[in-house]
Amino acid sequence: MGRRCWFGPAPARVGWPHPRGPAAPAGQPRVGEPGPYKAAGPSLLLLLLFLLLLLPPLPPLPPAAMLRLLLLLALLGAAGSLPAPLLRRRRSASLPVGPYQTRYLRQQVCQFRELNIHRRMGIAFLLSTIDHFGFDENGTFQQRYLVADQHWKKDNGPILFYTGNEGDIEWFCNNTGFMWDVAGELNAMLVFAEHRYYGESLPFGNESFSDSKHLNYLTSEQALADFAVLVEYLKTTIAGAKHSPVIAIGGSYGGMLAAWFRMKYPHVVVGALAASAPIWQFGDLVPCGTFFSIVTNDFKKSGKGCSESIRNSWNAINHLSSTDAGLQWLSNTFHLCSPLKTPQDAAVLKNWLSETWVNLAMVDYPYKADFLQLLPAWPIQEVCKFLKDPSLSDKLLLQNVFQAVNLYYNYTGEASCLDVSQTATKSLGEMGWYYQACTEMVMPLCTDGVHDMFEPQKWDFDALSEECYRMWGVRPRLSWILSMYGGKNISSHSNIIFSNGGLDPWSAGGVTQNITDSLVAVVIPDGAHHLDLRSRNPLDPKSVQQARATEICLMKEWIEKARHSH
Amino acid sequence: MGRRCWFGPAPARVGWPHPRGPAAPAGQPRVGEPGPYKAAGPSLLLLLLFLLLLLPPLPPLPPAAMLRLLLLLALLGAAGSLPAPLLRRRRSASLPVGPYQTRYLRQQVCQFRELNIHRRMGIAFLLSTIDHFGFDENGTFQQRYLVADQHWKKDNGPILFYTGNEGDIEWFCNNTGFMWDVAGELNAMLVFAEHRYYGESLPFGNESFSDSKHLNYLTSEQALADFAVLVEYLKTTIAGAKHSPVIAIGGSYGGMLAAWFRMKYPHVVVGALAASAPIWQFGDLVPCGTFFSIVTNDFKKSGKGCSESIRNSWNAINHLSSTDAGLQWLSNTFHLCSPLKTPQDAAVLKNWLSETWVNLAMVDYPYKADFLQLLPAWPIQEVCKFLKDPSLSDKLLLQNVFQAVNLYYNYTGEASCLDVSQTATKSLGEMGWYYQACTEMVMPLCTDGVHDMFEPQKWDFDALSEECYRMWGVRPRLSWILSMYGGKNISSHSNIIFSNGGLDPWSAGGVTQNITDSLVAVVIPDGAHHLDLRSRNPLDPKSVQQARATEICLMKEWIEKARHSH
Repeated sequence: MGRRCWFGPAPARVGWPHPRGPAAPAGQPRVGEPGPYKAAGPSLLLLLLFLLLLLPPLPPLPPAAMLRLLLLLALLGAAGSLPAPLLRRRRSASLPVGPYQTRYLRQQVCQFRELNIHRRMGIAFLLSTIDHFGFDENGTFQQRYLVADQHWKKDNGPILFYTGNEGDIEWFCNNTGFMWDVAGELNAMLVFAEHRYYGESLPFGNESFSDSKHLNYLTSEQALADFAVLVEYLKTTIAGAKHSPVIAIGGSYGGMLAAWFRMKYPHVVVGALAASAPIWQFGDLVPCGTFFSIVTNDFKKSGKGCSESIRNSWNAINHLSSTDAGLQWLSNTFHLCSPLKTPQDAAVLKNWLSETWVNLAMVDYPYKADFLQLLPAWPIQEVCKFLKDPSLSDKLLLQNVFQAVNLYYNYTGEASCLDVSQTATKSLGEMGWYYQACTEMVMPLCTDGVHDMFEPQKWDFDALSEECYRMWGVRPRLSWILSMYGGKNISSHSNIIFSNGGLDPWSAGGVTQNITDSLVAVVIPDGAHHLDLRSRNPLDPKSVQQARATEICLMKEWIEKARHSH
Repeated sequence: MGRRCWFGPAPARVGWPHPRGPAAPAGQPRVGEPGPYKAAGPSLLLLLLFLLLLLPPLPPLPPAAMLRLLLLLALLGAAGSLPAPLLRRRRSASLPVGPYQTRYLRQQVCQFRELNIHRRMGIAFLLSTIDHFGFDENGTFQQRYLVADQHWKKDNGPILFYTGNEGDIEWFCNNTGFMWDVAGELNAMLVFAEHRYYGESLPFGNESFSDSKHLNYLTSEQALADFAVLVEYLKTTIAGAKHSPVIAIGGSYGGMLAAWFRMKYPHVVVGALAASAPIWQFGDLVPCGTFFSIVTNDFKKSGKGCSESIRNSWNAINHLSSTDAGLQWLSNTFHLCSPLKTPQDAAVLKNWLSETWVNLAMVDYPYKADFLQLLPAWPIQEVCKFLKDPSLSDKLLLQNVFQAVNLYYNYTGEASCLDVSQTATKSLGEMGWYYQACTEMVMPLCTDGVHDMFEPQKWDFDALSEECYRMWGVRPRLSWILSMYGGKNISSHSNIIFSNGGLDPWSAGGVTQNITDSLVAVVIPDGAHHLDLRSRNPLDPKSVQQARATEICLMKEWIEKARHSH
């Protein structure tokens, strides 16, 4: 199985494409001429910074700075957990009562804005168990999920089940056009399940993030159990769905969940598409530095002098931040809403810049897109146009760095300033991923400044543990995910597609070579973070078209096999 | 795979052998002439009764009586959780400190008393995580395990890992001679891991059973996680064990754990031997009445009039217990240490008798054995010698019933009376299975008095739920085990042997037909509860010899395959 689903050459180790596909489409705002600064909704990196600023001032220890970067570096950039400004978020006036009772409370649309497409979904809630693994806490909570059955063939047609990750499920709906694109071809129902502690699926309402006691049920195992119970509920309550084969689909952390869902609940899902899922970014399964070296490669290959300019920028910041005048200059140059005041603030600035480069690598899509930010096609190429000369003086270099990050933060020209001092977001609900990174999701990352363009920072588990204990009163467990999900020893499982983009730093921890005939790696050299899960686009490179064809072919095989098994 | 391991005919549905094998060996105490009554250690059923008597007086509702029977009817008869009177139980003076630190604290012997064999083991403790699935409770506890490496080939020889169940691990060591018998042939290390909340592996010491908060971590999932962590610890700390293939072995609930261990942690164990594991005795996977009809069949085929006598005994007790004189007569006739006082006490007597018949079916071994009680070979045949005439008057019938149960309780002739009023065991530590039956391990059982010899009692989940809530403040979750472990939909797993004895009532919920080539059913028509896990015995029927040969052959295949995989 699987062999007849290859449309291109056999997948190889992640490669780095030279031509980045077609040039950016015409009609986009002119790069390098940002518009006037206007007030804008909270952006991802500002949020990260706000979270960072929640913490008391840190001594300027490189490990601690890196540590915060690691903690805050959500797989999706945590944007998913932001209130999506363009989606109206309403608390439903009356929630369903009684266990496992579902009502379609309202209709919602998913918006694929690049293509100006809107698709209708029903929004529902299932009363789910707060603690699947213990009986002392017998409470329930409303888990939100979205359903679209326009294309579903009622006689046990398949169900594509999005295993929601660290964010509002409507946001994933808006960024997983692939499922909509294949629904018709597969006669499939679409279900998007929200991950507990995100979006509206808060086990203890506003108290959910109040302390470690309330956060205790925010784990991948609990989330998978929610999904299993939800699938079983749907299959037993929707007429004609009793024998529907269910395929798990997810991206990023959601991709890990999709893969783990198939591994742990193969009786619930017949297979899984795990897109950009860094299931091996744990323990010592992969070198901790690969992640940042992929980011660096993206910049290196997107413009001469680009990665070197960034590498040189750190010292330039260090030099300037050692004097008050330099800090002032940095604040002015970067149009910071709140000026940097002490040399220690330079760490904040550098962290913020580091995250910007990482995020650009994640969203280096071949067309204008609005994933984490509204950005032009191949945004790293655009950014690198400002970063051609690494040998400039500190100030000239950093002026260019500002132009580069300004493209990311202010492509619309609506930001009045880059606000790195704003107070924290009001709701701790946004901190779910921070908690997860402090417990189960311990992903070692490091830089050496040689194989990457960042300041050297070692992986420091002890510092992480201390920080997590201080923040949440919990200690991360470094090896638990390996014990639970098997690390690299997963060959006894079946029917999982691991897709990875060659541009995506998270591919460092991904499965990029076939493990068995039914644990298949799909590599998209031109792809950034789960490009394959996005809507079809005229500017899609051929590699992602091939990847999707392979994925669809394998899913059809699973569905066909399931049809014959009952 | 698997095909070349069949030594007998293909396994069929559980059958009922007519000839029960060789007659009981000479030299045993004469049946029917019990010796004088002397004080003895607490027996299983007395314990069960004591537990029952812990509860406040019940209205004589049949469902409630059945319910208590169900709750107390541990798979192993709960004897495993008794302090084994012949094994000295010591608290180690100094326990190991630091995570995952093991010391061999003392040596212990396993005693296979039928064969007068003693085998030496090391006893050790591993500091394990109390809550694998949450981070708020960050405590640890000492998990006990036994290790024997006399036969182990250090260069990655296999490890046979007993997945301990609801009892003291030393007791399982004493009753799993099979592992000792095959250790040499497989060059295997033996490990017996104690299940949390049993024996000496108490997460909160004497407080472990104090309330639902402390009991919260007594689940199969936590136990499996303990096992996974322990195996990984052993493989990384024992020189030469890094690539040792590990095979899970367990009987009864331990057999379920062995199977589930392979299903959920296939990266940890290459295969599992699940002996007498009723993994399908949940939900509506099997009829609730089969269990008791198997017990009935055992008696029916072991002597003419036998099951009918028992069926008629219930009304006889009902008649007699309606008067004070009748109660007095029952108390005298059954040599009860504490006389029955009210008609309601008759329910206690009947429950006790019911459990006796069930336990006899579980231990209907072909040789004199001391599993739950010291008993002669084929004890049901011996018991049925007293129960030939079901048409006798009430008193004569019950006098015979007494002779029958007296064989079970007083084969040694040492009991001074059958003490059904003894105060409860001092430690609630014995109540682990009761709690598990009130949470995850919800196994529907029922009787109808037609297909079985018991009083008709329906399965009543609501009553169970109320009782559990009253006792522990928890509610059982009927379908959770199905959601977690897949019910009958387990064909995507591999390398599990399900062995079942045809005489064993727990085979009602067992896997008795092959599911795939590597999910293999081994049926032992002449076998009672996990006879195959017991030591080889000259009186073993051929069916169990064949079963063990099949099991060994399959285990060798798994080991061989694992050897080639690294």
